[in-house]
Amino acid sequence: MTRNLADLRAPQIAEHVGPNSILVLPLGATEQHGPHLPLSTDTRIAEAFTNGLAERAGDELDLWMLPVLNVTKSSEHAWSTGTLWLSAETLHTVLDEIAANVAGTGCRRLVLLNAHGGNTTLLGTALREIRRRHGLLTFLVHPFVPPAYGGTSNAAELGMGIHGGHDETSLMLHLAPDLVDLDAATRQVPADFDGNEFVKFGGPTAFGWLSNDFGPDGHIGDPTTATATDGAQLFDEGLDHLIAQFREIATFDFRHAS
Amino acid sequence: MTRNLADLRAPQIAEHVGPNSILVLPLGATEQHGPHLPLSTDTRIAEAFTNGLAERAGDELDLWMLPVLNVTKSSEHAWSTGTLWLSAETLHTVLDEIAANVAGTGCRRLVLLNAHGGNTTLLGTALREIRRRHGLLTFLVHPFVPPAYGGTSNAAELGMGIHGGHDETSLMLHLAPDLVDLDAATRQVPADFDGNEFVKFGGPTAFGWLSNDFGPDGHIGDPTTATATDGAQLFDEGLDHLIAQFREIATFDFRHAS
Amino acid sequence: MTRNLADLRAPQIAEHVGPNSILVLPLGATEQHGPHLPLSTDTRIAEAFTNGLAERAGDELDLWMLPVLNVTKSSEHAWSTGTLWLSAETLHTVLDEIAANVAGTGCRRLVLLNAHGGNTTLLGTALREIRRRHGLLTFLVHPFVPPAYGGTSNAAELGMGIHGGHDETSLMLHLAPDLVDLDAATRQVPADFDGNEFVKFGGPTAFGWLSNDFGPDGHIGDPTTATATDGAQLFDEGLDHLIAQFREIATFDFRHAS
Amino acid sequence: MTRNLADLRAPQIAEHVGPNSILVLPLGATEQHGPHLPLSTDTRIAEAFTNGLAERAGDELDLWMLPVLNVTKSSEHAWSTGTLWLSAETLHTVLDEIAANVAGTGCRRLVLLNAHGGNTTLLGTALREIRRRHGLLTFLVHPFVPPAYGGTSNAAELGMGIHGGHDETSLMLHLAPDLVDLDAATRQVPADFDGNEFVKFGGPTAFGWLSNDFGPDGHIGDPTTATATDGAQLFDEGLDHLIAQFREIATFDFRHAS
Amino acid sequence: MTRNLADLRAPQIAEHVGPNSILVLPLGATEQHGPHLPLSTDTRIAEAFTNGLAERAGDELDLWMLPVLNVTKSSEHAWSTGTLWLSAETLHTVLDEIAANVAGTGCRRLVLLNAHGGNTTLLGTALREIRRRHGLLTFLVHPFVPPAYGGTSNAAELGMGIHGGHDETSLMLHLAPDLVDLDAATRQVPADFDGNEFVKFGGPTAFGWLSNDFGPDGHIGDPTTATATDGAQLFDEGLDHLIAQFREIATFDFRHAS
Amino acid sequence: MTRNLADLRAPQIAEHVGPNSILVLPLGATEQHGPHLPLSTDTRIAEAFTNGLAERAGDELDLWMLPVLNVTKSSEHAWSTGTLWLSAETLHTVLDEIAANVAGTGCRRLVLLNAHGGNTTLLGTALREIRRRHGLLTFLVHPFVPPAYGGTSNAAELGMGIHGGHDETSLMLHLAPDLVDLDAATRQVPADFDGNEFVKFGGPTAFGWLSNDFGPDGHIGDPTTATATDGAQLFDEGLDHLIAQFREIATFDFRHAS
Repeated sequence: MTRNLADLRAPQIAEHVGPNSILVLPLGATEQHGPHLPLSTDTRIAEAFTNGLAERAGDELDLWMLPVLNVTKSSEHAWSTGTLWLSAETLHTVLDEIAANVAGTGCRRLVLLNAHGGNTTLLGTALREIRRRHGLLTFLVHPFVPPAYGGTSNAAELGMGIHGGHDETSLMLHLAPDLVDLDAATRQVPADFDGNEFVKFGGPTAFGWLSNDFGPDGHIGDPTTATATDGAQLFDEGLDHLIAQFREIATFDFRHAS
Repeated sequence: MTRNLADLRAPQIAEHVGPNSILVLPLGATEQHGPHLPLSTDTRIAEAFTNGLAERAGDELDLWMLPVLNVTKSSEHAWSTGTLWLSAETLHTVLDEIAANVAGTGCRRLVLLNAHGGNTTLLGTALREIRRRHGLLTFLVHPFVPPAYGGTSNAAELGMGIHGGHDETSLMLHLAPDLVDLDAATRQVPADFDGNEFVKFGGPTAFGWLSNDFGPDGHIGDPTTATATDGAQLFDEGLDHLIAQFREIATFDFRHAS
Repeated sequence: MTRNLADLRAPQIAEHVGPNSILVLPLGATEQHGPHLPLSTDTRIAEAFTNGLAERAGDELDLWMLPVLNVTKSSEHAWSTGTLWLSAETLHTVLDEIAANVAGTGCRRLVLLNAHGGNTTLLGTALREIRRRHGLLTFLVHPFVPPAYGGTSNAAELGMGIHGGHDETSLMLHLAPDLVDLDAATRQVPADFDGNEFVKFGGPTAFGWLSNDFGPDGHIGDPTTATATDGAQLFDEGLDHLIAQFREIATFDFRHAS
Repeated sequence: MTRNLADLRAPQIAEHVGPNSILVLPLGATEQHGPHLPLSTDTRIAEAFTNGLAERAGDELDLWMLPVLNVTKSSEHAWSTGTLWLSAETLHTVLDEIAANVAGTGCRRLVLLNAHGGNTTLLGTALREIRRRHGLLTFLVHPFVPPAYGGTSNAAELGMGIHGGHDETSLMLHLAPDLVDLDAATRQVPADFDGNEFVKFGGPTAFGWLSNDFGPDGHIGDPTTATATDGAQLFDEGLDHLIAQFREIATFDFRHAS
Repeated sequence: MTRNLADLRAPQIAEHVGPNSILVLPLGATEQHGPHLPLSTDTRIAEAFTNGLAERAGDELDLWMLPVLNVTKSSEHAWSTGTLWLSAETLHTVLDEIAANVAGTGCRRLVLLNAHGGNTTLLGTALREIRRRHGLLTFLVHPFVPPAYGGTSNAAELGMGIHGGHDETSLMLHLAPDLVDLDAATRQVPADFDGNEFVKFGGPTAFGWLSNDFGPDGHIGDPTTATATDGAQLFDEGLDHLIAQFREIATFDFRHAS
Repeated sequence: MTRNLADLRAPQIAEHVGPNSILVLPLGATEQHGPHLPLSTDTRIAEAFTNGLAERAGDELDLWMLPVLNVTKSSEHAWSTGTLWLSAETLHTVLDEIAANVAGTGCRRLVLLNAHGGNTTLLGTALREIRRRHGLLTFLVHPFVPPAYGGTSNAAELGMGIHGGHDETSLMLHLAPDLVDLDAATRQVPADFDGNEFVKFGGPTAFGWLSNDFGPDGHIGDPTTATATDGAQLFDEGLDHLIAQFREIATFDFRHAS
């Protein structure tokens, strides 16, 4: 049976969705990903993992997939024509309104499955607001396996393969090779942070950046070494990792939660 | 080649999208459609027509499809669990922000292709606001061929097959038969307007309604006579009608527009 | 006795306004109407019909007139100095706040009597939101009798007498002749739609327009043939038509409405 | 000639309104005024003074009257059915949008002529915001002559005839006697402030109040002694006082204003 | 014991704050005060009076001081680099949200102690909104003793020592002499109002102004005669006056308030 | 000389603040911190580090301290009376408005120095928005040294000393011992995450929580072992760490930034 909530008929909602169900909101993006990847990259990745998750663990964990949000907060790529994005204020409101509907189904768990790093902090804020305003248990997961959690690493990127780099490009070579132009791929690893101990991706000093702060190409990382094989492996590992997280989510509860 | 804007790579945007391009924003919905149709009905119809349009007239008319909005203004179905919807204020803002991005591509024409009647007046308002705020030529089309424009008619619905009725159900039997439960379909034609000259669907006196104003079933119309054959015919005629509209849109311009 | 709600004293409200009362909100505008009509045209027409309605059917139908909104959404005329207008967002909020007050009176029916076409879609959206948020039965009527409903027609306007044309000018010659400068009137029927089947006023393809898209004069239609006699007839027929609509509104109810 | 801006035709705006013109926005209210006065009291007073001002000084001072705002911020009377009101946030926005239009006419002076005390502080805030955001010279005047400026005084009210008291009732007996029910008038002078030095109307300690904080009647003051003669005198003196203020406004300018 | 609410530990709140408690919100500003006073002037004055009040009357009147708002509505000084300010809309919202929290403590009285004149009208509006929305008894006091209430007067300022003049400068010489540069002080008394009867500070015609409407210096008044001795006296008298107001506030109640 | 921007006089701003200056916005909170710490804990910590930073590195790095924000986003503690907090939407707006002012000074770097973990994700979002909307280089630092960066660790807290635990309590014993009630301190280490690999503080699965999800006490961690000595060491190490970050911030720039 389908695991897409929107493919249920109205009477099936009450029949299938209840306190043990987990509703999953996939978040993609429509934004520039350098000269080698399509604007749909994040949406396609979000959908691939969502579908994989539904197939492999949908029945086991009572998962119901919401329609993917394909336009989210891509303000760091606003400079690049074709990027479609919502302001931080608007995305926050969209999430609040969808969460109100989700709470109305009687489910208790909502998971944001986010494939666009530009949304992460805003979603972190939304987790708490949705919990407080709508009473749901809320979670945020990312489909991508970063090196720290068992994914493949790439020394050439110096930890900066954050947008259109080796991993994302490999995944797209696996998922939608026709949309990738590997000939156009170039290594684009910023030297801005050279020698920095604090101000760097993942460092203790967070900083604001737009993708054109690093040059006119738009991606950050080294896609030149990407392969479909790496992508397939990233996808499998990522899905395993996601399923493991969802298994924990499925039973997690606060002891004192009202 | 793809006609999905989001499947272009960033450098392709400037290459392919220009003053003669028409950008198309499909609007679906995730909302109850009675006991026989899935919540995704409007989104699936919007996507089917969008894809058909791209295939048959994409190259001829330089069309570029934006990602479908799958959660829109379904406040009339808010009472039905599982319906996902944005408030009028939020959808207005979402459209304004997307239109700002569209204007940035250098195209001059934006078409809203709307498969959900609950959006129609709000989109009518947005047409002017987008024209004024972002300078685009804006258009609103509906994929469905109403009787007045050559579509099949159904006397049993008394002109009230507006939500989950014969036409929409037939289309879904054509497009996604597995998601339709025709056994659950019932005739649901309101008697509220019996004998009315003014206060009725399409009458001169507009009125506010929620779908549960007409009873607990949620649909309005008579799906019991729907067939896949009718749906195929509605789809073909609808697509023909859409293409004819787009041909006119492609050359339309205001003589005095700045 | 007065039929203006605002001319009641506070204790009279509870005495006179109840479940059978119909509250009427007239909406005018303050906007350019070409070189021959005053900016107050829509407000004066709204008030004239509201007063006529109160006189002829106020007691019969238990009507109570709210103060006219004289500044509404005239963004299509924003380019013309002197036009006063509220943004779509603000008018939506104003209507919501007034509707909350109306719902507090214990009446069940609110009618928006709108004399400005630029408001129509926004009011269409408001009908549903007011019904959902405040529980009122809501209706939208227009004081003007379009040709399709028995009004005089004018072949020279090609169906485009939508702003300052024959009908509106005739009405103003009837209601406030001193404010009309017929010498300044010119025929202004756009050729932009010549040969169009879809993209035209009243056609299936809605489009966004500003009044200066059609040239620097600001009106659309042919006021040169307007006469006070035609205006008197339009007024009488319009009022008859309005009263007929209100009689139906007075008894209309949803069978299932809570 | 008319002094109502809205009764000008579009080309007359540029002809008549310029840097020396003063635009006047009258603000009334639709709110309970006790058992003896109609809800329209403030609107009628605002209009009467506006009309008187136009007649006596319109040509001399190049005044142009905007349409009256008849629904403003009456939140202190929200408890009384029939009161129509905008939230503070909404009225602030309405004023900002109208002021933007006024600034577009090329005039330099906007006067808010306010007949509803509940608006006064909000308008005081708006004066500065309109000056800063739209560049206009802004002024706020009140049509009523308080005792301190030469109006009649009434010892029985102890300085508390602020809503539906002697002065307002007298004015209405002069302007619209048919709408006044003097038999229903009662003295309603709060004892809440007895013996207070600071916390009282006009005292150094401002305080928040709703009109039902003083009892169920809604008015504050002593209308029992009101007469049409007093009203006529108040109107004449008030108008004289207004005209004197407008004469000063007409020539006032900041030496350093850009 | 401390009288700062924020220095209580959570269980102490319920223990110490109850229906008889008065919560005090001090409002300062960070804004230019001419060449002789620091931007922190209003915040420092607000804090000094708040501390003095806590010391002298905190226990007697059950006062609890909230943290000072040090960035408020200083839009009249927006032109001067370094001024930090919130828009009128934002400050209104901030006050509403804080008031909601205050109402949650079970206290019944909230006093806004405002040291920045640019906030006064907005706070006047907030008094009523907070009373209506959150049920609190609300009050607004100013720490400064204007001439009319027993403070020192200064003929050289012609009643215009409203920003950085003799009184404020004297107070700062008393409170924070190191931050005052009296050598940079100049007399800055506008001649804009010379001969005016109505349009002037404290006159019946309110007007909108920005501080640079009076010239490039930013202050309005005559600080050249300021002395620490005058400041000490102003502080003592001001504190006496505040305490007298708070004593009245502590027992004030509406007889009919629910 | 002072390093508080607000203690400068207006002409000093242009004199002292320029492209090489770093403006620092400290963010505290007013929120419950369990039975042993005052509501002012985060504000006091923010101020102590800000002052220490100004003293030790203010001149070297051209730092200018903005007034501390003492009411921020503490929605997770909304249930606890006395907590004062701004909604996510409001704090976002407050930051945007202050950042606009900061950008007006001509400085290029704004650092948010945040002592309240509940703000962290929202500030992460603000970093980018401020960079995009106002052009500033933006940074976020935390005054606290987490174990991973050289601070003292506490095995008893299992990594969950996040609110009122050993470190925060030790710091307060060092900074404001009179406000700490160590007798009321209890160990409060949630068992909710026992055995979890993903859903836990710092784990890959982020989750929404309110502080009362963990019980009625409000703190999370083990303050029972806190000492002033540990606090002094944490303060010194934290300040060292902050200064090191600021040194890197002072020279950081994007090579391609416009």
